[in-house]
Amino acid sequence: MPQKNDVVEKIRGEAQVVYRRVQRRQKPQMRLPIRALTNVRYRPQAGYFQLRGRNKVRTLTVSTVKTFAQTLKMLAMSKELITSGRHSTKREAYYQAYNWAEAAFASQDESDTVMDDVEAMLAVNRERLHFRADEHGGEVAGELIVIDRDRRSRRAIEIDCTRFGSGAYSVPTVVEDLRFRTDAKFVLAVETKGMFERLVEEDFFHAFHCILVSMGGVPSRACRRFIRRLADAKKLPVYVFTDGDPYGYFNIYRTLKVGSGNAAHLNEFFCVPRARFLGVTPDDIVEYELPTHPLKEVDRKRAADAMSNDPFIRHHKPWQQAIERMLKMGVRVEQQALAKHGLEFVAKTYLPRKLKQVRTFLP
Amino acid sequence: MPQKNDVVEKIRGEAQVVYRRVQRRQKPQMRLPIRALTNVRYRPQAGYFQLRGRNKVRTLTVSTVKTFAQTLKMLAMSKELITSGRHSTKREAYYQAYNWAEAAFASQDESDTVMDDVEAMLAVNRERLHFRADEHGGEVAGELIVIDRDRRSRRAIEIDCTRFGSGAYSVPTVVEDLRFRTDAKFVLAVETKGMFERLVEEDFFHAFHCILVSMGGVPSRACRRFIRRLADAKKLPVYVFTDGDPYGYFNIYRTLKVGSGNAAHLNEFFCVPRARFLGVTPDDIVEYELPTHPLKEVDRKRAADAMSNDPFIRHHKPWQQAIERMLKMGVRVEQQALAKHGLEFVAKTYLPRKLKQVRTFLP
Repeated sequence: MPQKNDVVEKIRGEAQVVYRRVQRRQKPQMRLPIRALTNVRYRPQAGYFQLRGRNKVRTLTVSTVKTFAQTLKMLAMSKELITSGRHSTKREAYYQAYNWAEAAFASQDESDTVMDDVEAMLAVNRERLHFRADEHGGEVAGELIVIDRDRRSRRAIEIDCTRFGSGAYSVPTVVEDLRFRTDAKFVLAVETKGMFERLVEEDFFHAFHCILVSMGGVPSRACRRFIRRLADAKKLPVYVFTDGDPYGYFNIYRTLKVGSGNAAHLNEFFCVPRARFLGVTPDDIVEYELPTHPLKEVDRKRAADAMSNDPFIRHHKPWQQAIERMLKMGVRVEQQALAKHGLEFVAKTYLPRKLKQVRTFLP
Repeated sequence: MPQKNDVVEKIRGEAQVVYRRVQRRQKPQMRLPIRALTNVRYRPQAGYFQLRGRNKVRTLTVSTVKTFAQTLKMLAMSKELITSGRHSTKREAYYQAYNWAEAAFASQDESDTVMDDVEAMLAVNRERLHFRADEHGGEVAGELIVIDRDRRSRRAIEIDCTRFGSGAYSVPTVVEDLRFRTDAKFVLAVETKGMFERLVEEDFFHAFHCILVSMGGVPSRACRRFIRRLADAKKLPVYVFTDGDPYGYFNIYRTLKVGSGNAAHLNEFFCVPRARFLGVTPDDIVEYELPTHPLKEVDRKRAADAMSNDPFIRHHKPWQQAIERMLKMGVRVEQQALAKHGLEFVAKTYLPRKLKQVRTFLP
């Protein structure tokens, strides 16, 4: 991974290409990868959706002059942010551009698109350009020390995630500079805050030496990046625990593991290839006699789409079998359904049993 | 505030009323306050929407037998939770009730309604019955030490909210047993995580000796209760910083300060009467030359509703004037619009100026 200065160098490099062409009295150009599903493939070995490498070239003309100027200004803003040690939300970036005269954006949609272009052009994630979203980063409790920096003294501070009581560590939207220390054996990424608090209350992370992460539904970029950086840095397996429904399987697990189609230029940074699916599986419904709910129309549609179009599912036979079983049973199941057997069942029986057969987890 | 045992005593008391009537061969009864807007009034002195005190009586009959049984079982579940030191989400409660045979719930709507009844009947908030929602509790950074208990050792632990670097303390969904230590001068409750992280990055809480809370939109019960308990315990003023639009004024600020109509039996526990509105106000748009957006139809409707129906707004002339000004200007404004003057403007200029004129804050 390049360090911060490398991003500044990349920005300088792009600017120089433009500058040199101007000096040679040629029309300046920028080269951007095409960000669309048609330019994506699933690489099982790399472990994520990848761009196929097709580019578009943005040349300065009368019709592109505004976007061209905005792209250069956005590069300059990023350089300034990195230098000053500040970060800007996408919304703040849009408002800062109010002062760009004719190059100001008509709406945040416009500024977001230019930001996506810059991100794809430099092949680094937006957070390293010091842009961030206004989003929830997930919560953490367990055997982990996060090393951050005190804003005032610039000294390293250690955040002990075993010492939050009933609360948790809230992950910031930019996690690029965090470091980690841990003896934990695995990361358990949980769909809901309710289940996260259940496991904290049952003292699960002490008993099983792990790090709990509450994703709060579909994990945000910040949450995915946090899990990815932590898992890579400490070579930790990541187990995912969601509801047993297409939303949990595809929108949450699949997104966490391999990324998503419409942000393919980012999956490299945000996917968690070492993630494995712990549950809740259709098999669990039978084995644990869990209460279920009928599949909704949207569930069936999502499952059918995945079976025919999702390169990840099409690559993994065990997933196809699980989905077929779910469709045949016609039901979905929630994590919290385990409470039928008592609140402590999930921590004292279900998860311990599962963790003895990690090899049977869905890929 | 009664201690935990008092809640158990209340549960015992309700059960005894039922039991005694049964012994006397009378039909058992429960008395519940009516939870509806028609049974609500705004009490400026108390500082929140209050129930008018009308009750309904639930008598055991053929048609009420199921609800009657469920209410008693729910009381028993709460007693067990309190005794075991566990909490149950509303969803887990619904699943635990799968084992109640004929008294099982057909859906979570049903179990939630019975839970609301129990809450209103005992006149304590649900969290003290050890039921919690699956919701985000808000995030905290600043000059505050939260005192919680280690789950394993039961010893007190101190959580220093100045020591989270770029991250934050994530508030748990149940805050009843938290204690606080602080020398902060005020609490600043902020609408968005983006603005919260801006202020953390600008080292605002050190410079102004305050506690920052990110509400993440309309504050959840946990977040409101946290601010309320903190502000009461430490006699701290609470300043609220939202977008300048009807959603920020009513859905966020008004809810935080006085509560909401459809949960009137709870406002007593969740409102923050000492809250004052810092901004962004319609006046700020002019004073700071802020970029705006036209009011949407839904904004106008919300404002008109508040002017004619909201007892809080109708009680406070300065709010009526602010809303009239907003409607006349025809625009709304976002917190992050201050970034037009540079990212640091909000922390270095806007908030410091505002904090010098606290008396002009909207009530």
